[in-house]
Amino acid sequence: MTVDLSHAPTATTHVASIYNSAVAAWAVSAAWELGALDALYEARTLDAEEFAVTHGLDPAGTTGMFRALSAVGLVERIGARVTANDAFDAVYHNKSFFHWLSIGSAELFREMPSVLRNENRKGDYYRRDAAAIAYACREIDHVTYAPTFWSALDRVDFDVTHVADLGCGSGGRLMDLMRHFPGARGIGVDIAPPSIEVAKQEVAANGLAPRTEFFVGDVLRLERRPEFDEVELLTCFMMGHDFWPRENCIATLRRLREVFPKAKRFLIGDATRTALPDTQLPVFTLGFELGHDLMGTFIPTIENWESVFAAGGWDLVRTNRIEMTVGEVIFELA
Amino acid sequence: MTVDLSHAPTATTHVASIYNSAVAAWAVSAAWELGALDALYEARTLDAEEFAVTHGLDPAGTTGMFRALSAVGLVERIGARVTANDAFDAVYHNKSFFHWLSIGSAELFREMPSVLRNENRKGDYYRRDAAAIAYACREIDHVTYAPTFWSALDRVDFDVTHVADLGCGSGGRLMDLMRHFPGARGIGVDIAPPSIEVAKQEVAANGLAPRTEFFVGDVLRLERRPEFDEVELLTCFMMGHDFWPRENCIATLRRLREVFPKAKRFLIGDATRTALPDTQLPVFTLGFELGHDLMGTFIPTIENWESVFAAGGWDLVRTNRIEMTVGEVIFELA
Repeated sequence: MTVDLSHAPTATTHVASIYNSAVAAWAVSAAWELGALDALYEARTLDAEEFAVTHGLDPAGTTGMFRALSAVGLVERIGARVTANDAFDAVYHNKSFFHWLSIGSAELFREMPSVLRNENRKGDYYRRDAAAIAYACREIDHVTYAPTFWSALDRVDFDVTHVADLGCGSGGRLMDLMRHFPGARGIGVDIAPPSIEVAKQEVAANGLAPRTEFFVGDVLRLERRPEFDEVELLTCFMMGHDFWPRENCIATLRRLREVFPKAKRFLIGDATRTALPDTQLPVFTLGFELGHDLMGTFIPTIENWESVFAAGGWDLVRTNRIEMTVGEVIFELA
Repeated sequence: MTVDLSHAPTATTHVASIYNSAVAAWAVSAAWELGALDALYEARTLDAEEFAVTHGLDPAGTTGMFRALSAVGLVERIGARVTANDAFDAVYHNKSFFHWLSIGSAELFREMPSVLRNENRKGDYYRRDAAAIAYACREIDHVTYAPTFWSALDRVDFDVTHVADLGCGSGGRLMDLMRHFPGARGIGVDIAPPSIEVAKQEVAANGLAPRTEFFVGDVLRLERRPEFDEVELLTCFMMGHDFWPRENCIATLRRLREVFPKAKRFLIGDATRTALPDTQLPVFTLGFELGHDLMGTFIPTIENWESVFAAGGWDLVRTNRIEMTVGEVIFELA
């Protein structure tokens, strides 16, 4: 049994399904953080009250969380017994996008009435949960960019002795790169000192500290330094839109060309703006694009990007269109 | 054109519609606060960019807000031109329930993972936006309780010289009562001093100050005082569930019987817990019940209520089942 959508609903039930979906989006995100999605994905069925007891959770609220999933057909529920179905598997695959929206970006969307007013759009005019967004983005990266990223690395046809990841966050990608190129030294650059601290700990825990260096710095205003001189491979994921608008993007690309004089390959992976009809938008796109409109962040199209590389001093070797949700693309530059 | 639901969607498009509904719920709430829902309801069509300019809003974000409504079939959009349809009228009628969820209660739902953990459920373990909830509840009251409330007042068959509203908030109901009984003195009781301040201002602005008194106090622990002695009509809306659990509720009903010795009629209006199948839940119920589970607030059923009145010292004259969304009911006690 799933929600009956086999006949056109009345306007009232349509609106109720929109409302219940909003509640369910929070339930999906919470159930992921609490381990309930993983438990149900593996076992296919569980007892909500038992899950609450073994995980130290409030029983009524936990049953209510599963009820929210059931209300929009994401699970089937009979009393406390909850069972996964096809829709559950689809939402399980997309759970990180729900979390990005409902937990990481909830404050931004909640404050939409004030955020939209021009008079308020200056300074730190919105808030998001940076730790929650980092939590979601690790998995977003895994389900969207990872396979294409590894293929792009396989096409690197020169020796790599030094790699640098720009906007390295907590260092996951940098460690992936250093495992892929076992002899290479790694450099991570990020604007957020707390992220760098986490990255240093992770790198140390994985025994990679001796061949890694981190720098706190703004990728958009990077200065040349000796450590950067030897880097042959440069990566930058999920922050390329910050390079824009156009003139700034060209200037940043040029500066990176100078700051990393030996870079032979530059992989830029990011979301791009789509042009789908409103009623055909997949998971993530609507939230991602409206969220960035609220934050006043320009999101370029693939065509916007392809028009700046030459002026920025880079040759476009290959455009990998992933376009799973928000027009994800990886550009391979040389 | 609305969203095509005439054939069973694949799991992926089903999950996308849930995701987009979550974004749209925020857009509905913001559009209401910004006056966009009212403008569209009256004019049936508007230009999103023009609306942004005349209201001092960011144009891209404003178009994005309407795009979110369009993504789930609540409006039709061609470029900046937005047109209302049947689903829009249904959501317009239900806008206050969306606002209660997406703005007023967003922090509670966002923090569901931590709020559900038993170890965190003590003290002030959750946050909501009290001002936003008051904003939504004014309209929730209007669309749910108001008609039944007026009918119940018409059945008052004795002279009313003094009325009291318990949990009076910003005083709207008290002013309604004093207009309905033009000679009567009015008493408002609320636990929140800021609400009482607003109520005093409203009452003064409406020329009702000379025959009104307010008291800051906890309805659950009210003490007898001379001003309460003459009250014949008592009302208490949208807070009766705070009387519970059962033993506390009986004690509170008894105490109110003593504190208001001349009360001949007591109208209690509140939501009650429903027992609908998960997939048939109307707007509000799922959010209201999960929200109160998260807050650890017991919501009684109508049967729970009907089992305490006699023990609490009151006769049940009539049960008015409204049951529009969350089992709304008005009990007439004597």
